[in-house]
Amino acid sequence: MRSVSIVGIGQSPVGEHWNRSARQIAYDALSAALADARIESADALYLGNMLSGSLLDQEHLATLVADSCGLRGVEAIKVEAACASGAAALRVGMMAVAGGFHDVVVVGGLEKMTDTVGKDTTAGLATAADAETEALHGVSFVGLNALIMQRYMYEFDVPLDAFAGFSINAHRNGANNPNAMFQEPITRDTYVKAPVIATPINMMDSSPVCDGAAALVLVPTEHAARYTSGHHRGAVQILASAGATDSIAVHDRRDPLFLQAAETSSRKALAMAGLTLDQLDLFELHDAFTIMSALSLEACGFARRGEGWRLAQEDAIGPRGSLPISTMGGLKSRGHPVGATGVYQIVELVQQLTGGAGANQVPNARLGMAQNIGGSGATIFTHILAS
Amino acid sequence: MRSVSIVGIGQSPVGEHWNRSARQIAYDALSAALADARIESADALYLGNMLSGSLLDQEHLATLVADSCGLRGVEAIKVEAACASGAAALRVGMMAVAGGFHDVVVVGGLEKMTDTVGKDTTAGLATAADAETEALHGVSFVGLNALIMQRYMYEFDVPLDAFAGFSINAHRNGANNPNAMFQEPITRDTYVKAPVIATPINMMDSSPVCDGAAALVLVPTEHAARYTSGHHRGAVQILASAGATDSIAVHDRRDPLFLQAAETSSRKALAMAGLTLDQLDLFELHDAFTIMSALSLEACGFARRGEGWRLAQEDAIGPRGSLPISTMGGLKSRGHPVGATGVYQIVELVQQLTGGAGANQVPNARLGMAQNIGGSGATIFTHILAS
Repeated sequence: MRSVSIVGIGQSPVGEHWNRSARQIAYDALSAALADARIESADALYLGNMLSGSLLDQEHLATLVADSCGLRGVEAIKVEAACASGAAALRVGMMAVAGGFHDVVVVGGLEKMTDTVGKDTTAGLATAADAETEALHGVSFVGLNALIMQRYMYEFDVPLDAFAGFSINAHRNGANNPNAMFQEPITRDTYVKAPVIATPINMMDSSPVCDGAAALVLVPTEHAARYTSGHHRGAVQILASAGATDSIAVHDRRDPLFLQAAETSSRKALAMAGLTLDQLDLFELHDAFTIMSALSLEACGFARRGEGWRLAQEDAIGPRGSLPISTMGGLKSRGHPVGATGVYQIVELVQQLTGGAGANQVPNARLGMAQNIGGSGATIFTHILAS
Repeated sequence: MRSVSIVGIGQSPVGEHWNRSARQIAYDALSAALADARIESADALYLGNMLSGSLLDQEHLATLVADSCGLRGVEAIKVEAACASGAAALRVGMMAVAGGFHDVVVVGGLEKMTDTVGKDTTAGLATAADAETEALHGVSFVGLNALIMQRYMYEFDVPLDAFAGFSINAHRNGANNPNAMFQEPITRDTYVKAPVIATPINMMDSSPVCDGAAALVLVPTEHAARYTSGHHRGAVQILASAGATDSIAVHDRRDPLFLQAAETSSRKALAMAGLTLDQLDLFELHDAFTIMSALSLEACGFARRGEGWRLAQEDAIGPRGSLPISTMGGLKSRGHPVGATGVYQIVELVQQLTGGAGANQVPNARLGMAQNIGGSGATIFTHILAS
């Protein structure tokens, strides 16, 4: 198995792109990544996307994107694992390079969720849940997360505003990210007065519906210098990649407040990388909802059960804290174009690990972990990167 | 890179399963494949599927299937490449085992196209085309293939009934396959009198809308004996795997009558296997429409341009002919549950290569090729297997 490195990154701004179609947004990200690696083509494209069939009446999306981005002819495969589609695409791309199947692979993530004529985005997002035993009864995806959050607050006696810190940190960081959807800091007061979406989840607990694409160029580490010599930034090595799943329906879990797949995949990834949690300089977690931040921190072992929210009461999670998270705004402020999010996380981790994160730079960041969650915790991929 | 072998196969009967949900059909195939390999679990599931989002309001399908089939917790990823999703899933599964990421992988294909309440299957299939430049104008997927067939007949001066032989062969073989949707032979008269769907494609040119699932168990070849010792059948080795794409829209192709991606992927696969076409004992091609059979035979080099249909005038394509195709009924008679088809092709190739094809057995079959096509030729994967 060959070691794999990232030698190019690209991203489109996240937002409501009513004047850009899916293929145009993909082009923005892919062409930037190819230019960053100073190449014009690649051997294959693995594209993370969740909702193109439901919202755009477009399957066969990877071939369409290859065709639209100067990669006509290459092997192209769409990868879907709900909101973890982006990290799943990275997983596949990494296997293709590590196994010697390809020498230059583009991993993309793409989602177009707004401006979808006659489609119901909320119903689309509910396809991440079990259609026959959850969505059929009318529960939306935010509704499922609200049930989990409500139970968490009851079980661990956590106050309603305990989660504010996650949102404040995300927005503070997003304010410095030119690609973030929301570039404005918020205060505790903003959080407390935010309209409720599904009790107890309010607007500041929840990531937005939006459009975006991100892309990576992967090569064998032994070839990386060819692409980065004289470059403004070095290559970043993928030290570990691990996926795990859980029951798709929340009601089938032994403990709905424990993300078993986060525990499994992060434990595997750390073992693969030969690292312990305290060696990581930052953690790009999946803050689709603030409750998911707390659960992810607990399942990975950064906090004890029922205490993940406490990290957000301190400055620990800021870029200069002991455990920086959502350093470029996270899903909450940068935005959550679902199938693209896992790739945005990796793009941002590369920025951090190569000193390119600007005002949000984590000092001396060398080791970072990213975790991408599909559904209400049913599919989770964890990646560890090193510069 | 490790050599990869198939040590277990499973399939559900293909048909209109109004009394079985998608997860139940998947269970039929996956549990059969696991039992065939005499195992109860696996390390990962890669699942080919095209339409679950559009027709079932269910994404996140691989995790759902893992959860429903005794594989809860394993890495699970859905793979989509329109009607080539099944072969794309095999491609990913093969990379996972060859690269040393996993030792026991299940590759599945699943499609549920009937009994989908309030959904339009024809519109679903059109998501394989370019939504913005083809489907938007009202052309259906069969319509696109009809345009190609019409042009072929004009360009090469081919009569309307020249394609009958493909359908007759498929139905003759399907009659002996207990898992085929249509188990009745047809005559030339049946073909000539068949109702037209989209001129010139008639009911006998076209594969049916249906439900089905198929599954494979992949392991490193060096471990294969553990699973097959004392078994009724030996392992089958995957000699080669290659994918290629073309423009997604037919109108963007330099030559709409040449399947460039079939030529590229079969040429790559043959080179990888160190074989020439004449060494192959059979070819499971993608006869979604009879015109696709002719174009696939031509692009791979089995026939000259404009002459692929001539092979169907002879007994060449029968199980005892010089180039057996659609040996278990093909997409036409076994059926074409789109995202599952590529896996059915491999299951049937394994049956042939291990002497398990019953009345349709190709004598002394040792080397076989399968080709799975997404869209109107935009995505094509070719696999070569050996026993």
